[in-house]
Amino acid sequence: MKSAIISVGTELLMGQIVDTNAVYLSTELRSLGIDVNYRYTVGDNDARLREILDLALKDVDLIITIGGLGPTEDDMTKETVCDYFGEKLVMSKKVKTDLIRHAAAHSYTLTENVYKQAMVPENGTVFYNGAGMAPGIAVEKDGKTAVMLPGPPRELKTMFNDSVRDYLKKFSGGSIYYKVIKIFGRGESSVETDLLDLIDTQTDPTIATYAKEGECTVRVASKRATVEEAEAAVMPVVNEIVRREGDHVYSIDDEELMDVVGKKLEADRISISCCESCTGGMFAEYLTTVPGISDVFERGIVTYTYRAKEEELGVDHDTLQICTAVAPEVAQQMAEGLYKKTGSDVCISVTGIAGPSGAMPGKPVGLAYIGCAYKGETTVTKVLARNLSRQWNRRYFTLAMFDIVNRKLDGRKIPESY
Amino acid sequence: MKSAIISVGTELLMGQIVDTNAVYLSTELRSLGIDVNYRYTVGDNDARLREILDLALKDVDLIITIGGLGPTEDDMTKETVCDYFGEKLVMSKKVKTDLIRHAAAHSYTLTENVYKQAMVPENGTVFYNGAGMAPGIAVEKDGKTAVMLPGPPRELKTMFNDSVRDYLKKFSGGSIYYKVIKIFGRGESSVETDLLDLIDTQTDPTIATYAKEGECTVRVASKRATVEEAEAAVMPVVNEIVRREGDHVYSIDDEELMDVVGKKLEADRISISCCESCTGGMFAEYLTTVPGISDVFERGIVTYTYRAKEEELGVDHDTLQICTAVAPEVAQQMAEGLYKKTGSDVCISVTGIAGPSGAMPGKPVGLAYIGCAYKGETTVTKVLARNLSRQWNRRYFTLAMFDIVNRKLDGRKIPESY
Repeated sequence: MKSAIISVGTELLMGQIVDTNAVYLSTELRSLGIDVNYRYTVGDNDARLREILDLALKDVDLIITIGGLGPTEDDMTKETVCDYFGEKLVMSKKVKTDLIRHAAAHSYTLTENVYKQAMVPENGTVFYNGAGMAPGIAVEKDGKTAVMLPGPPRELKTMFNDSVRDYLKKFSGGSIYYKVIKIFGRGESSVETDLLDLIDTQTDPTIATYAKEGECTVRVASKRATVEEAEAAVMPVVNEIVRREGDHVYSIDDEELMDVVGKKLEADRISISCCESCTGGMFAEYLTTVPGISDVFERGIVTYTYRAKEEELGVDHDTLQICTAVAPEVAQQMAEGLYKKTGSDVCISVTGIAGPSGAMPGKPVGLAYIGCAYKGETTVTKVLARNLSRQWNRRYFTLAMFDIVNRKLDGRKIPESY
Repeated sequence: MKSAIISVGTELLMGQIVDTNAVYLSTELRSLGIDVNYRYTVGDNDARLREILDLALKDVDLIITIGGLGPTEDDMTKETVCDYFGEKLVMSKKVKTDLIRHAAAHSYTLTENVYKQAMVPENGTVFYNGAGMAPGIAVEKDGKTAVMLPGPPRELKTMFNDSVRDYLKKFSGGSIYYKVIKIFGRGESSVETDLLDLIDTQTDPTIATYAKEGECTVRVASKRATVEEAEAAVMPVVNEIVRREGDHVYSIDDEELMDVVGKKLEADRISISCCESCTGGMFAEYLTTVPGISDVFERGIVTYTYRAKEEELGVDHDTLQICTAVAPEVAQQMAEGLYKKTGSDVCISVTGIAGPSGAMPGKPVGLAYIGCAYKGETTVTKVLARNLSRQWNRRYFTLAMFDIVNRKLDGRKIPESY
């Protein structure tokens, strides 16, 4: 089944909002085996929306609109699309009751225009909004279907999970199975070169590589009659890619590196502490996005000054004066000082130059050293980030820290440098 | 001048990539006084791109394509658009030389297909790519113009800044002036209610409100013959909004709260340290995104356990046992312990429940206490986040910390709670 997504809203054209809804929906539709052939963005304008409907429905049988279902006069998606599909709108007692209940529960005063949201097509499907007011709508005519979803991302996702996914299953043209392989420490172009023969001959499964801030993602997907058949097509390709990329692969299930590490720490009750200079707390912040991490995360220290490094971690004053803070000796002393202080099973440190300024002779922006004390041994690893920006460098350093912890927990070798 | 943006690339339809390019371009075009009336996303497909060109050029005189200029067979934007505009492609010696130079400088081996990027229209404008290989192109015919830009965001932005903005100035239908007012501590719906009479009567300047993770943004924009006239139209409205929203406003120049705070600290050489529980280092991480902050940021401590709070900050053992860690007493002792240890001018602390679990009787998920020691006085402020997610709560707590520091630096009152 071919489909088109139409995002409605003048604010989307103004450039202040990133349309994450369309990204979410594209992914979900693909998982259902529904191809997204076009995406359109249009302002709150009846005539323009009709033009887009004309164009899209020439080629696809399913359109999904996002936004424009609210109570204000700007909101015209439902009115335009239902009229286009020859559907008359009538007041739904059920939706009206829902609106009154929702307002009471959230202490809103209902103004008259709110009831605009209770108008639904005579023949159509209504999707309850579990996270807001405006219901979603589906109408069908002559083999064409329009599904209208609300714009606020929480409402859209809640509604999709509650009922829209089930509704859409009838349009699925087969079953999709896919795996997303995550790779750190090897660039997208290198990965693509490694896999060129696989990529060049692909039809199904499809193989697509994506670069994301120092990481690389490979998506392998198949659409077959059943999920089992699709899985049987995908897995040999996944295994071959994992074989080629070796232990640069940290997940084949689209996980984040911090989640992979956090889960291993939690599962084995391995305690961890960190001390950071150039990353300014990013490692601790990433680690603590993992729910339940408080069971194993003992302490994080951001030592941004020489004084803090000396006082908090016992880094030697003379070492700092002679080597500066960006030196393997300092990374080592930070990790070991942290271990002396906390006794945590894993003690990881980082010191480096995030930029934009701060380069020293022989020490460019983007250079960092990572120390890691684990099982009585401290390693120091050099990292050279591509210096695309301060934030890019900080993120790369942080991911390298997670990669090092991940490898230590697995008993795998640490690369000499990143 | 009306325009349309066309993003080309099958990967954009698959949902793995957020189209930040289109957002960037929309903003830039508006600043030039060029309206963006449509945005389209289409796969790497000649026939579909032509359909979109047909539709868009019926209504607008300027289209800008993003992506599909690279060396591979998939990349067909230039070929399709130039053919559509009746332009023949010829090899450009200059671009070819650029490609060879670029490859030499970056130690690439040039394969034959790379020279595809040196093909340019006989009559057209070529934009040099200062961050990559493929040049941008502009062609014109019968009063219609197509501008083609590369897909990688760094290349697109670099090219836009280097030459495309200047090229597009001839399409500017007047001059835009705008201000973006940033508000913390007051929800979008409340702000909208405050400004309803202004919003309802708007034509020019336009007033638009946006919600963003606990913050609210109001954009006031005007398009007039000159920038001065547009500014004269915008500023009275901005002043009226600032008057109504009072000291919830922290910027009228679209700044981030952490940048506002960071700049004040740097300007007055006021040192700061932080200690965090539930935010896990997010305050330190946000603060250290500000370049140059190392001059004033002394230390950050993430005390995730009772033991860490006692050892690092001298929080009283019995207080923790009796009150738990989520208590105003603990926030106060953390801030004061940090001050004793570091002597930093500002010492800020936070302790709370980020969720999803961890609620206690009378202490829901989303509750936090923020302590702030400054100029010999320690305040403790209660925060109740809306608990939309763990990360939402953590971010709201962090922003509240910055808001408190910002108010203290200005000598303004701290709200009783957030």
